[in-house]
Amino acid sequence: MNLLIVGGVAGGASAAARARRLSEEAHIVLFERGPDVSFANCGLPYYLGGEIAEREKLLVAKPALLRSRFNLDVRTQSSVEAIDRTKKTVRVRDLASGREYEEPYDKLILATGAAPFRPAIPGIDLAGVYTLRNLQDTDAIKECVDRGVKQTVLLGGGFICLELAENFVRRGIATTVVEKNGQILTPFDKEMTTPIVQELADKGVTLLLGQTAEALEQTADGLIVCLNSGQRLPAQLVVFGVGVRPENKLAFDADLEVGPRGGIRVNEFLQTNDPDIYAVGDAVEVNDFVSGDPTQVPLAGPANRQGRIAADNIFGRAVRYRGTQGTAIVGVFDKTAAMTGASEKALRQTNRPFRKIYIHPVHHAGYYPGAEGMSLKLLFDPQSGRILGAQAVGGAGVDKRIDVLAVAIQAGMTVFDLEEMELAYAPQYGSAKDPINMAGFVAGGLLRGDHPQVDVEAVLATPTADRPFLLDVRTPQEFASGHIPGAVNIPVDELRSRLSELPRDQKIAAYCQVGQRGYLATRILLQAGFSAANVGGGYKTYKLFQPSA
Amino acid sequence: MNLLIVGGVAGGASAAARARRLSEEAHIVLFERGPDVSFANCGLPYYLGGEIAEREKLLVAKPALLRSRFNLDVRTQSSVEAIDRTKKTVRVRDLASGREYEEPYDKLILATGAAPFRPAIPGIDLAGVYTLRNLQDTDAIKECVDRGVKQTVLLGGGFICLELAENFVRRGIATTVVEKNGQILTPFDKEMTTPIVQELADKGVTLLLGQTAEALEQTADGLIVCLNSGQRLPAQLVVFGVGVRPENKLAFDADLEVGPRGGIRVNEFLQTNDPDIYAVGDAVEVNDFVSGDPTQVPLAGPANRQGRIAADNIFGRAVRYRGTQGTAIVGVFDKTAAMTGASEKALRQTNRPFRKIYIHPVHHAGYYPGAEGMSLKLLFDPQSGRILGAQAVGGAGVDKRIDVLAVAIQAGMTVFDLEEMELAYAPQYGSAKDPINMAGFVAGGLLRGDHPQVDVEAVLATPTADRPFLLDVRTPQEFASGHIPGAVNIPVDELRSRLSELPRDQKIAAYCQVGQRGYLATRILLQAGFSAANVGGGYKTYKLFQPSA
Repeated sequence: MNLLIVGGVAGGASAAARARRLSEEAHIVLFERGPDVSFANCGLPYYLGGEIAEREKLLVAKPALLRSRFNLDVRTQSSVEAIDRTKKTVRVRDLASGREYEEPYDKLILATGAAPFRPAIPGIDLAGVYTLRNLQDTDAIKECVDRGVKQTVLLGGGFICLELAENFVRRGIATTVVEKNGQILTPFDKEMTTPIVQELADKGVTLLLGQTAEALEQTADGLIVCLNSGQRLPAQLVVFGVGVRPENKLAFDADLEVGPRGGIRVNEFLQTNDPDIYAVGDAVEVNDFVSGDPTQVPLAGPANRQGRIAADNIFGRAVRYRGTQGTAIVGVFDKTAAMTGASEKALRQTNRPFRKIYIHPVHHAGYYPGAEGMSLKLLFDPQSGRILGAQAVGGAGVDKRIDVLAVAIQAGMTVFDLEEMELAYAPQYGSAKDPINMAGFVAGGLLRGDHPQVDVEAVLATPTADRPFLLDVRTPQEFASGHIPGAVNIPVDELRSRLSELPRDQKIAAYCQVGQRGYLATRILLQAGFSAANVGGGYKTYKLFQPSA
Repeated sequence: MNLLIVGGVAGGASAAARARRLSEEAHIVLFERGPDVSFANCGLPYYLGGEIAEREKLLVAKPALLRSRFNLDVRTQSSVEAIDRTKKTVRVRDLASGREYEEPYDKLILATGAAPFRPAIPGIDLAGVYTLRNLQDTDAIKECVDRGVKQTVLLGGGFICLELAENFVRRGIATTVVEKNGQILTPFDKEMTTPIVQELADKGVTLLLGQTAEALEQTADGLIVCLNSGQRLPAQLVVFGVGVRPENKLAFDADLEVGPRGGIRVNEFLQTNDPDIYAVGDAVEVNDFVSGDPTQVPLAGPANRQGRIAADNIFGRAVRYRGTQGTAIVGVFDKTAAMTGASEKALRQTNRPFRKIYIHPVHHAGYYPGAEGMSLKLLFDPQSGRILGAQAVGGAGVDKRIDVLAVAIQAGMTVFDLEEMELAYAPQYGSAKDPINMAGFVAGGLLRGDHPQVDVEAVLATPTADRPFLLDVRTPQEFASGHIPGAVNIPVDELRSRLSELPRDQKIAAYCQVGQRGYLATRILLQAGFSAANVGGGYKTYKLFQPSA
């Protein structure tokens, strides 16, 4: 068996190691265009910031190790230029010598990855303008930073640019992030990015939303980034992180099917339309686990698992890839944002019915010192309660809750299952009623009809004359320090004795700080014959939507 | 509706609050023998150590709040002495005045909890000898500590005594823990407690296993704890944490069914054999979620959920309690031990077939600074791969992995599902192949037959003459710094070229440090026609079983 693998990082390296475990006999060649295989892609920003001090650490498995341990024929600086599907060969160019040769295959795995997009704007090729994909890009950026950079402009408000922002600030560089959309971190719903926007501001990062770079100009001091707004930003270092494009040229030229967004088409066995050619990782189109629709998700975890599965299938095991649910996480200074499954906007785009709730718990028992807050949004089916997606943003413990919800989505669990989850509790780790249980209680109460809720954005979108009676059930102190305009304050502890102050002919929308007292108020009002609902997630959710109100 | 609730902490307070949300009309009385309701039981050791500085923090919801917010008739210092099931009344004694009175009920919830066991040994009632259940116990111990304690002896090596040990060491007290069994933390399998035993030793705690206190003597300086071994331990403070007994007297006297270990019997709706009387929390017998057998699990999380469910059922919703899976966690200085589901010894006791694997991963990407190690043990069905239990011990991230596995057990997932889990990965939070995925790969490989494994204790239990050929595939440096006696060293990277040194007529047990190189070695050997298996979890698992070897 001649197994050729094109691309030696996450998916390709995983496929190669797995293939060797399954077969000592196979001749396994790993082609990599660059000098490095199996490097720590996700660590690059932290090496630039100095958090990862040694470059060596980024080289997870060097070619020599892959050769000695896995008996792989590792060929770095080797570009696969074309596939001849009839002859079952690839044409390889040795980038060092320029020599070209053909290599025969029985099976071929394409793990070509995705390339950062460089928009064709004037000045894109000037010195000091970068994208970040590999160690060579990193070395170049680091050299630039080490020479002394006062100002940097990062184009794109996605995961990589926010990680870079943190690390450049750590290096003392004045940092501006420019994002063409109206929000950063576009896989998330906009309101869930509010705490990250605030964190960037707190840490001195300038964020410009709804703007793009139209040109780059060279000056004596460095560069000017010219935005569509007319703003001109001086910088000595510019990084474009405006998305990636699947490296599909090899596949496309060989008449392998490619999806509308450029991802190589594969079946559930990760096979292209040529049964001897597999494709994995950032280069492929996968099915979204929640919607079932084709999508492209450039993430390291799925790439690794796909590599393994492709090797399994090549060596005679029929293993299916179940799809990608888009579990992702980013650290931005002292905050974490994480998500799994569908976002609200993805559900709206496909007209899938859903309900949602927000909670704002602390990550462990409040009575134990150091409890950090988070905001958690849960999306679920309005009939079955099946969990469709979740997003969380805050301090410690965000990763744990999103992982738990990722498993719940994988298992097809409902919000009612969350109510019953038995998670580890001691005061420094969680709460007797964990945030996950609380999310289940709130969502379950909503679906059972015990807990009618109204979304804060629905209230705000209603013309003032038609709005429900807004009842703030917090303390007068809380009310005084900020409330939803038009609200009337009756603390929940006084509500039973002050029901006569409330209208019987108007719907009442009660709210508190996070939703808990508002829930109790709603229960009191409903049982007293009022028409009432709780504003989901309370004032804190309002502030996610209206941060500057 | 007259709803009476006996016991005002976790289960009782949860039931009361839930009942009020469901009914504004009900008259809800919460009886509590002590002065406090809804206090933070699990925080008591940390208040003694000073980590929780204010006593006030431990009072999660005071009687006044429960009255004003939930309109509850809270009666503290009120002991319910008897139930008259025919008249449907309880007899209550007001402990302040001594007055007794009857209170009628329509429904009754027993949330009486469990009392720490005080063995009837000479001296048990001496001053300076305590158990720890409530704030009054805590105040008394704190007063003792504040007066100045040089030495303390803690009887019992369970969760509470280990938490106390940490906190007393923080206060500068020489601490000895005495445990009658051959291991601490008896819900865990013994080998998984090895890192905690080492942590106790590192932090200066003296641990005596297999010993009990037979008597306590008063001396001029304080107390002497006399052990069955003859050892005499001086101490100024002694705490017994040798288990709890359900407070079942009320139930027993009223002819409610009680299980063999004293837990009040309830059905899945948490109803006793009297349909108007429910029971919840530490006082009840529940079903083990994995085995289905009756058990008693005194944990705050299940108590809270049971309180809620009992209230649901009383107010006309048929809600089932699914059983308790025993998810538990304890912090001991800088280490964490956590578990969920069945232990190996529980499975052995019931003759349930199982397989197990050990892995020793780090909690996030190794290339990012601060990665902390853990040992993870997974127990699963040998046919279906269904997960039966898990235990983890180590540093950061132990809680997250056990929570993920707790959900997997709840969902009935298999080790094959673990292989596919899509968990949140960025280098400061996890790995592209998370420890959970790794556990799935190892267990899945074992069940598919790709990865034959042998348990290290099976190797050690085999007479030397019959043992497999022990092959250490680590580097010569690793081998020199410690190996399994009798092993021969051939590094995995040289194995393919040194196969001639290995016996063809003897089974080979290969091992490395954690199991990964041993797995590759096993694959190489099997494909070269040898009879081979990997020693599961490698040398690190060996050291869990043989810490002093």
